[in-house]
Amino acid sequence: VSAFIGVDVGGTKVATARLDENGLGQEFRQPTVLNDTGRLVDEFVELVEQAAEGHSYDAVGVGVPSIVRFATGEAVSTANIPSLVGAPLRDMLSERLGVPVFVDNDATVAAWAEAHDHDFKLVCRNLVMITVGTGIGGGIIINGHIFRGASGGAGEIGHALIGVVTEPDIPFAGGTFPEPGSLEALAAGRALDRLAGAPAASKPGSALGRAAAAGERVDGQAATAMAAAGDPDAQTIVRRWAHALGIGIANAINTFDPEEVVIGGGGAAAGDLLLEPAKAIAEGYVLPGLRGLARVRRARFGPEAGVLGAALLARDELRR
Amino acid sequence: VSAFIGVDVGGTKVATARLDENGLGQEFRQPTVLNDTGRLVDEFVELVEQAAEGHSYDAVGVGVPSIVRFATGEAVSTANIPSLVGAPLRDMLSERLGVPVFVDNDATVAAWAEAHDHDFKLVCRNLVMITVGTGIGGGIIINGHIFRGASGGAGEIGHALIGVVTEPDIPFAGGTFPEPGSLEALAAGRALDRLAGAPAASKPGSALGRAAAAGERVDGQAATAMAAAGDPDAQTIVRRWAHALGIGIANAINTFDPEEVVIGGGGAAAGDLLLEPAKAIAEGYVLPGLRGLARVRRARFGPEAGVLGAALLARDELRR
Repeated sequence: VSAFIGVDVGGTKVATARLDENGLGQEFRQPTVLNDTGRLVDEFVELVEQAAEGHSYDAVGVGVPSIVRFATGEAVSTANIPSLVGAPLRDMLSERLGVPVFVDNDATVAAWAEAHDHDFKLVCRNLVMITVGTGIGGGIIINGHIFRGASGGAGEIGHALIGVVTEPDIPFAGGTFPEPGSLEALAAGRALDRLAGAPAASKPGSALGRAAAAGERVDGQAATAMAAAGDPDAQTIVRRWAHALGIGIANAINTFDPEEVVIGGGGAAAGDLLLEPAKAIAEGYVLPGLRGLARVRRARFGPEAGVLGAALLARDELRR
Repeated sequence: VSAFIGVDVGGTKVATARLDENGLGQEFRQPTVLNDTGRLVDEFVELVEQAAEGHSYDAVGVGVPSIVRFATGEAVSTANIPSLVGAPLRDMLSERLGVPVFVDNDATVAAWAEAHDHDFKLVCRNLVMITVGTGIGGGIIINGHIFRGASGGAGEIGHALIGVVTEPDIPFAGGTFPEPGSLEALAAGRALDRLAGAPAASKPGSALGRAAAAGERVDGQAATAMAAAGDPDAQTIVRRWAHALGIGIANAINTFDPEEVVIGGGGAAAGDLLLEPAKAIAEGYVLPGLRGLARVRRARFGPEAGVLGAALLARDELRR
């Protein structure tokens, strides 16, 4: 019997689970160790052993929120987990666990999961995944393989600029991340939070303004709930957010001509409220020769895509 | 001896040349037949026979300015050559010429040429080509292979939106090509022409304004020449153009993590005046983990990249 452990490393928690012929097992979680590489590796080992639940496993896959040099499993600059950076994670973990370990970008392994069906068979050979969370991640599958680029940095589409006014006299903001005008700055969860704050402040009579006056939390989640309940100000905000995501989707289609564009991450929880206007906007910007070809859908595996994709990475790399 | 004929189909002319062990032979050209598919195919046959110069050849490659369904060689919607659209060019030409024929996008075959050295050996396995001409074309090489996407439309990065102000209340322009805010609208030759016209009209005392008053042509080429001669208004215009191209380059690097980004097309003729500021802008927008890795350079084969790439496509597809 073959089995694989998937590890999904986020800025707040590390999650693991075991994949075998019965599917994905129970998920185990701990808060991410942010500032000590040795303790972070200890945490990975402990969580892998918990997920194994006393059974054997053949390999371990790890998804991390960073550009990854795949050969060594070394993370290169992450926004929020200093303990990850520069450590040859593949060898370090493999030595401790006694099985092969494979490390890749978190959105990339989520994309790898989404290219599979519920029987874990590869069913989509050309796919772009956009994860809409606090930030925006991207993962690309090309011709049935994970696309990593020359140094492990391919698919960082959250950092693509979509809304820059090209005036050279504007102070040059290059080097700020998220860069103003990037997909991440305009379509991530934080962008929605910021959009929600504006009418809360400027329109005291609006539902968001009244919520703010009542001391309630006025963020993206609140705006999404109000929009779902029919509030027009909140709907405008969600539509604006969806517009930015729609541009990201259209750019992905015009650039990659994929069979599927998959929207995942916490933002996917906004569901059709986000996805339907984003799809309509995207369709308008897609080249006529590509229109109607790519399917745009929500992530099939929801929040499990990261752990599952890491386990599938381990399975498929071991087979090679 | 093996030999291949390359055909480069543009909106104004069709060019052909023969590639053999001595390199690329003389180029033959005719104005493109725009509105009659039968006559366009006749033109291709005539030009291929001219390029053969009485020698035999093993296969023919054709680059066309369109999304191409590679299996059939069918062009899908071109902006300016109606006679191309919908014809199964591969079979039609192969039947007439008696050798295998391969058809692909023009910027894609140019990218394929640029991935080779002057001995026509593949020397770069991950490359993005941006052709800056009247429009903007894109060609992508991944892991040593041409990247076509699911339906032949990959690499249409000229149509990626880089400068859209994401206000949902702005009338939705989706469906216009080039779309306002797209790389093509902001960085193509036509964008420079338009930029040059503005000070010519609003600043009669500027060099461009005086040129306009004197009845001279005030276009991108004039602005480039004046910028090279040190005129500050013209330099601002070229810098603004370079800013848009720089964003296109940064997006290509953050998306594809290539070894090289190659700038070709007529715009490459502006040389360092365009390329140096564009590179500096791009470097600022590239993710820290990817900075300094991709080489940004001008096309090695200049205007011959299209014909050469088409011939190399024929050579390499025949070998498969």
